[in-house]
Parts: sequence; structure tokens; C-alpha cells
Amino acid sequence: MNTQDTICAIGTAQGGAIGIVRVSGPEAVTITDSIFSATSHVPLSQRQPHTLAFGQIRNDTGEIIDEVLISLFRAPHSYTGEDSTEISCHGSSYILQQVMQLLIRKGCRAAGPGEFTQRAFLNGKMDLSQAEAVADLISSSNAASHRMAMNQMRGGFSKELSVLRDRLLHLTSLLELELDFSDHEELEFADRNELSHTAEQIEQIICQLTESFSIGNAIKNGIPVAIIGETNAGKSSLLNTLLHEEKAIVSDIHGTTRDIIEDTVNMQGVTFRFIDTAGIRETEDTIEHIGIERTFRKLEQASIVLWMLDITTAPAKWTEMANDILPRCTDKQLIIVLNKADLLPSNQQEQLKTFFSRFPYPHILISAKNQENITKLQSLLLHSSPLPDISQENIIVTNVRHYEALTHAHTAIHNVLRNLQANLSGDLISEDLRQCLFHISDIIGEVTSDEILGNIFRKFCIGK
Amino acid sequence: MNTQDTICAIGTAQGGAIGIVRVSGPEAVTITDSIFSATSHVPLSQRQPHTLAFGQIRNDTGEIIDEVLISLFRAPHSYTGEDSTEISCHGSSYILQQVMQLLIRKGCRAAGPGEFTQRAFLNGKMDLSQAEAVADLISSSNAASHRMAMNQMRGGFSKELSVLRDRLLHLTSLLELELDFSDHEELEFADRNELSHTAEQIEQIICQLTESFSIGNAIKNGIPVAIIGETNAGKSSLLNTLLHEEKAIVSDIHGTTRDIIEDTVNMQGVTFRFIDTAGIRETEDTIEHIGIERTFRKLEQASIVLWMLDITTAPAKWTEMANDILPRCTDKQLIIVLNKADLLPSNQQEQLKTFFSRFPYPHILISAKNQENITKLQSLLLHSSPLPDISQENIIVTNVRHYEALTHAHTAIHNVLRNLQANLSGDLISEDLRQCLFHISDIIGEVTSDEILGNIFRKFCIGK
Repeated sequence: MNTQDTICAIGTAQGGAIGIVRVSGPEAVTITDSIFSATSHVPLSQRQPHTLAFGQIRNDTGEIIDEVLISLFRAPHSYTGEDSTEISCHGSSYILQQVMQLLIRKGCRAAGPGEFTQRAFLNGKMDLSQAEAVADLISSSNAASHRMAMNQMRGGFSKELSVLRDRLLHLTSLLELELDFSDHEELEFADRNELSHTAEQIEQIICQLTESFSIGNAIKNGIPVAIIGETNAGKSSLLNTLLHEEKAIVSDIHGTTRDIIEDTVNMQGVTFRFIDTAGIRETEDTIEHIGIERTFRKLEQASIVLWMLDITTAPAKWTEMANDILPRCTDKQLIIVLNKADLLPSNQQEQLKTFFSRFPYPHILISAKNQENITKLQSLLLHSSPLPDISQENIIVTNVRHYEALTHAHTAIHNVLRNLQANLSGDLISEDLRQCLFHISDIIGEVTSDEILGNIFRKFCIGK
Repeated sequence: MNTQDTICAIGTAQGGAIGIVRVSGPEAVTITDSIFSATSHVPLSQRQPHTLAFGQIRNDTGEIIDEVLISLFRAPHSYTGEDSTEISCHGSSYILQQVMQLLIRKGCRAAGPGEFTQRAFLNGKMDLSQAEAVADLISSSNAASHRMAMNQMRGGFSKELSVLRDRLLHLTSLLELELDFSDHEELEFADRNELSHTAEQIEQIICQLTESFSIGNAIKNGIPVAIIGETNAGKSSLLNTLLHEEKAIVSDIHGTTRDIIEDTVNMQGVTFRFIDTAGIRETEDTIEHIGIERTFRKLEQASIVLWMLDITTAPAKWTEMANDILPRCTDKQLIIVLNKADLLPSNQQEQLKTFFSRFPYPHILISAKNQENITKLQSLLLHSSPLPDISQENIIVTNVRHYEALTHAHTAIHNVLRNLQANLSGDLISEDLRQCLFHISDIIGEVTSDEILGNIFRKFCIGK
């Protein structure tokens, strides 16, 4: 990707009152001037930066494309760190396309996704984890995900990583002191206890960060909730009720749901990502069999499991199913949902209650069909939510790339600790320390390859 | 609608990289300052207009909602003519909603559709026809509709109306001269011939403008093309082919199409609005009967008619159908489309050619099913297009409200002419002249009632 040319992109979505075309690069002002006639006759090149110019965009034949306001920025005081303009037009897609075509004819290149932010990163306006937070900020849809992205964009995560790097460098310097005097075998300047202590502190910080990812991911993508149970227990009906719309096909034929359907619901500011699954039962049907395998795989990813049970099935089967499902849910928040309350004879309520009270999980009697007790179920879900209150100061890892780098860093620091305890030589320990530093530096983009950079910014929207 | 308070609205569509919140009114700068902390610590109230300020929007608890750029405008040098700010945020709907909520808590009111442009009109920044052109400009989707809207917004139409008003005032003054001396019956200062001549010139201008509406409407909404013919002739298949997608349900059952489906296609910069119609045939089916009635009503609105004929029907029926359809198309561009070429035995080609050559309309043999000759049909359509080349200087009426006002003005000036010729007294003529002036002034908003203003701006998008 060329980073020396001048790029342009439409920065706003189609359909609004206002549309903005962004231009950035060494020729940004010259090219914008070549299609712009200021009402005051003062070209952009002779104006002060951070000012607004009113005038017309005209095409090659002198026809007026639009009356616009242009914001002028001069390097390095712009988003990208380069000379930049923002052309604020009437929000017609025809006009925006015409302005883009004119800019391209005058020498601009249409920017790829995230290219403005990529330039901001390359020009040192932000580190890589801050650049990545820009995309998260734009897609943030609730208070918690907004807070996390804002903190990361403003460098909160970077500061934490910088603390980590300082400690790693301190550890390295202690180790090098030892290496320098390795000829004098009787001398051991770096106290191995001090080395171990510092390495343990580093491991602890990395652990805290990697562990925060499950929270970060749940905030960003929703807390994963799997709804499982026998076929025809009413899992799809419940999902429909919770989603307030018809996403899953509901029918009375056993084994209707074969595809796993995901959707998110926001309850009191907490996002839940519901996973509807194929019913669990012995089946000859190959396609459905694949669905059941996926159900158990999905179960592993869930934080909360709703085990749905059709109370009209014979009580003998309840034990059998409990034996199937409960061992798979030891590390989950499990809620036992007893469906079809509308079909329960009142004299069987006591038997049901006695049976399910033996399990160390909450159970709730509902009717998905008649929407009975759904609000109570929602409260139980909120109560089971693993999310703490997030403030703008919390450091929480939300990005899979960062999580992976931290996991690698953790392996490396773990090796350092093990080798220190095994009293291995300093140069072996130094190798693992370098690995750990490499992975931490990777997060803020100091050692990141062009290919990985390309992958990161490709996920951005155009115009950012 | 209150026009003294401070309004705010999101000016961009959801989903882009950049989102803009507009604020306008006497408290615009104070309210924006109350939620904004400039990085330079200089509040907006102490800054020069037409400058950009970088900083943070914070909520009541001090939490950062976004890092933003604010454009500052001071009355009367703004779009609305009032003090205004534009807050450029990261394009997250969560952030934009938070900024809106903050502004409203600090005293802003959420603007209704078109309220910024309405204020521009009320503050004399533009007349009503120019304000209306803003909405047309935003929705313009091709070069011709863009040119017309741009010309109107820049006052081209207003200038034409001003010429008209000058002539009407001249006519009035001539008439008043006559009235002033009406006691002296022998005197007739205003030469009735001169009066008539001026009135005729006015009528001619109004006529040209009203006549331009059919072109203006075709450019804005597409040239209406009706596809008619017997049931099962393949009208829906042809429409699908032209639209490149499955809009109409195609089946082999006679009378499938009951709803009239409209869609537009852009061919070489010309927009055609295709109207698919119910098949014309005697029917017992009430719903289908309604469809056929609508077909003939739609036919009246069309500029171009495609008469589709299934060539496998008996030639005896061809004459019958021609007698049905041709008399209804005397003022239309008619194209005879002979469908199902794929089913025609080669020895019948000559008979077909001989039969249809007798009509003074082009005919073309196609196969909608096999997409044969569709490009040739498209060329015929373009050739039949009634649109002249439009330049940015052409005055063309595109707005139904303007068309209606001009029609009323035309009736009034026509009465003036008739009464002049009938040698009626000056005060009677003066009454019609006032009517004519009233309707012309109505277009630019000089005499327009609040209710009508409300209706006009309600059609705008929010944030404009």
C-alpha cells in the first residue's frame, strides 16, 4: 500500500442531509483547490489551517457540482498527520460520487478501508492498539463497549502495556548484569530471587489482561447464552420471545431447528448473544446429527446455559437428560427452564419442584407459548451475567489479536519463570524474555509486519 | 413551530466513519461550549467564526463521550442565518445519541424535518423555491435532476419568477393609470392594445413554465413507460429483464399480475419508470377487473407505451387488440413489442412483418424469455425518450406545488386577457391580476401560510 500519495474517500453513510469527502496526503490542498472556487476568492493554499472555507465545487466544464464548506488541516495537526481537507457537501450520493470522480481525475487515489487511520498510525499519531480502538469506537453500541473503546483509543491500554515493557526491560537489565559477569562464576550480581520476583509480577499483569478478555469479548459481542434441551422442548419459541421477532422457524415436528441461529438482545444495558441449537436426541438424520454435534461445540463457548425441558415428558427421562447435560456445564452459569407450564396438571407441581430442587442450579417454570414468567427468566439471566461494572479507567482486552499476543507473551514469561527456578543459564532465559517483549510490542504495532497491518485495517470502514 | 429556540439534529446517515450533529439558534454556541472542552482551553465563545476547534465532549459525570472537531458559525454567516455549530464525531450511533441527549439536557430541542432549511428561509437566506430545491438536490440521483435542483437552489427559477412579477407589476401600473382617470371616460391612458400585449407575454412565460413540468417530472421521477397487452404476453418477464431482477411474479397462469409494480431503470443517464400492468382481457375475477381499470388509468399517465403481443396468438386477434389499444395511444410514443420470437415458425415471419408494418409505430420482435433483442428494445426506448438535453441554465419546473401555483396563475392571466378583449372595466381586470401575482408570490414563499410551510418542510430529512 502506497503511503506517499493523496487519498480520498466518502466518510459518511449514504442517505443523510450532509455528506463528507475526506482528502489526505501531500497534494490534498493543491488538489482540493483545483476543483474549488472560494466565494471569497482566497484559495485554500493561502488560508490558515483549522479554518472553514465556503464556495463551489465545479467540474472540468465549469458546471457547479455543489456549494460546499471545506475544513482545512495542515500536517502534522490533522487526524492522519498529513495535509488534509474535509469537503462537506449536500448529502446526495450523486454529488458525492461526482466530487470523488473529480478528485480522482485530479490525482487522488480512492482510499481503501481504514487507510486514514492507518496513516495516523504510520505517522505516529497513535499506536496500533489505539488505531484498532477507533474501529471499535465506531461500532460501539452500548455504554460498556463505548467506555472500553474510548479508554483504549485514548491510550489507557497502551499505558498498561508500557508499564509491562518497563518491567520486562528491568528484568532484562538484571539478567544482562548477570551475563556480563558470567566469566566470574563465583559472582552472581543479579539475585535469582529478585529475578523470579520481577518475572512473577509480570506474569500476574499478563494474566490479569488475558483474563479480562472474556469480559471484554462479552461486552463487545454479547454474553453467549446457549439454549439446549431435548427436541421440541420449545427452545425456538423461547428464543423468538426473547428476541421479540420470528428468527427461528417454530413447528411441531421434532428436530425442526438444524441451523444455529444467533442474535443479540440488550437487557438493561447488558447485551446477551443467544444461541439457538438443534435439539439433542438420537437421530438417523445426518443433517440433524451435524446440528447436534455443533450444539455441544457451541455449549463450550457459552457463559450461560439455559437447559430447556418439556415438563410433559415422562419424569423417568428427566434424570437421563440431567445426566447428559449437567456434566457439560460445570464451568457455566446454568438455568433450568421448565417449559409448557400451561400443560402442567396442578397436582404435579409439587413433584416437579421436589425433583429439580436437588440440583445446585436455579430452575424456573415458564410457558414460552403464553409468555408466562418470561420477565422472571430475564431477571435470572441478568443475575447470572458475569459482567462487572466497567468504568472508563478499567483496562480490558477486547481484541482477539491482542488476546493472542498476550497468550504468547504469557507462555514466554512462564518459560522464563520455569527456567529461573531450574537455575538455567542467563542466555537461555534471555531468549524467552525477548519473545515476551516481542509479543507485547506487537500489540502497539512496533514490530508488526505489513501483512498483519493490512489485515487489521481491512476490517475498518472506508473513509476512516 | 418555535423559531426562537436552539435546535439540534444528527445530520448524517447511520453507519459511516463520520457523524455530524448540527446545532443552530441563539444559544448554539453557549450550549455547545457547556459540553465541550477544547484541547487548547479556548472556549468556542472566544473563537473566530469559521474556525475548527478540537477537543472532547464530556457528559455530566465528566466521562468522555468522544473526541470531536467543532465548526463554529456566527449569525448571519451560517446556513440558517443564526449562530450555529457542527460537531463532527466518530460515526457511532451510540456516540451521536449521547451527544444529542446531552445537548437536549442543556436546553436544545431536537429539530423536526427540514427545520434548519426552514430557518434559512425565514431568516431570508433563501426564498421558498430555493429551500425546496435543497431537498431535491439531496435526493438527486442523475445529472439532469442534479442540474435542475442546483439551478433552482442557486435562484435560477426565482430570477425567472422575478421577471414575471416585474411584468405583472408593469401591467398593474398601466391598469391603475387607467383606473385613476376612470372619471374621465373619454380618456384611456393605458392603451388596451398595450395591456393585451403585455398580458399575452406573461401568459406565454407562464405557459412555458407549466409545460416544462412534464419534462421536469420525467427527469425527477423517471419517464413513465407503461407495458400493456393481453394476459400472458410476457409483460412481467420483460419488466424483470429490464430491471435485472425478480420484481414481478412470473407464472404461466393467465392474469397473474394484479398489482401495478413500478420501478426505475437508468439507461445512459436517462431514468425510465416502468409500470407493469394487469393483462387486458374480459374477466369474471373482480380483483383482476380492478387491475385492468387501473391499467387504463396508468396508460393515461405514460409518455411511452410498450404494447406487448404474444405472436403465438391467432392473427385474427391482433386486429381486435390493435383496435382496443391504438386509439388510447394517440398522444404517446408507442412501441409494438412482439414477444415469444423463440416460438415463431420461420415461415410466419413475413406475415408478421407485413401485418405490423401498416401501423405508424415501430415494432420489434423479441424473446423476453431468451433475452433476444432486448438491447435493441432499449435503444428504441432511448430514441423515444421525450427529454431534451438539460443545461444548468434551463428553467424547468419540477415541483408539484409550483406547477399547481403556475396553473392557477395561468387561469388568472387567461381571465385578464379574456376580460381585456371583452373590454370589461379595469377594476374587474385588476382582481384577476392580483390573483395571478398572488400565485407567483406563493412559489417563492412571500404569501405562503404557516400550514403550507409546515407541509413543505415536513418532507425534508431530519438534520437539513
